[in-house]
Amino acid sequence: MKSALVLFAHGARDPEWSVPFRNIQTKLAARCPEVAVELAFLELMPPALSETVERLAASGHDRITVAPMFMAQGGHVKRDVPRLVAELRECHPHIALELLPAVGEVEAVLDAITDWLVNSVKS
Amino acid sequence: MKSALVLFAHGARDPEWSVPFRNIQTKLAARCPEVAVELAFLELMPPALSETVERLAASGHDRITVAPMFMAQGGHVKRDVPRLVAELRECHPHIALELLPAVGEVEAVLDAITDWLVNSVKS
Repeated sequence: MKSALVLFAHGARDPEWSVPFRNIQTKLAARCPEVAVELAFLELMPPALSETVERLAASGHDRITVAPMFMAQGGHVKRDVPRLVAELRECHPHIALELLPAVGEVEAVLDAITDWLVNSVKS
Repeated sequence: MKSALVLFAHGARDPEWSVPFRNIQTKLAARCPEVAVELAFLELMPPALSETVERLAASGHDRITVAPMFMAQGGHVKRDVPRLVAELRECHPHIALELLPAVGEVEAVLDAITDWLVNSVKS
């Protein structure tokens, strides 16, 4: 299988907003050169998730993992993201499309945030 | 000095949205019992930052660190948060009010996200 990972973030009017996600993309490219890592946004900045998935499908990727770069489970993560992924599964039945939990639901990430805050208040 | 830390997040209509921040609050309380850890939100859910800072000031906290729980630097982090903190500094000149960078600007947090994604695509 040819694998890809999509960092799916909210989006903002300011192009600089995407910097942390491009930073993660670069780190992943260095550690998993066999996986194509792309960005996609829910609103306010391109590309849309459907556009990124279309492009990955066109270049032969048949296992695509969508990672929601959201801190918390609000309406976007609970409704918009699963709906978009369900639509994409219908459009691309030959692709194994996996949806990860939101980044803010990952215990190791919350632990890293906690470590940083402990260091910040103790310094 | 009596220290406090405010986890300052965007806010959402869904009360469940605040769960990851309450989770971090609990982890911090266990590791830094000497620091009061409170939540505050920019919009859509209470309490506001000013309300949390008022309450901490009223209970004698004179060193308050504000940690923006935002993944990326958009208009909120670039303009709204510094403006709110500047206003609070004017209202409370006796309090040392420190503003941390956004959580998505912290290299160790981005590394934790990357580690999780590497494990997710390799599994």
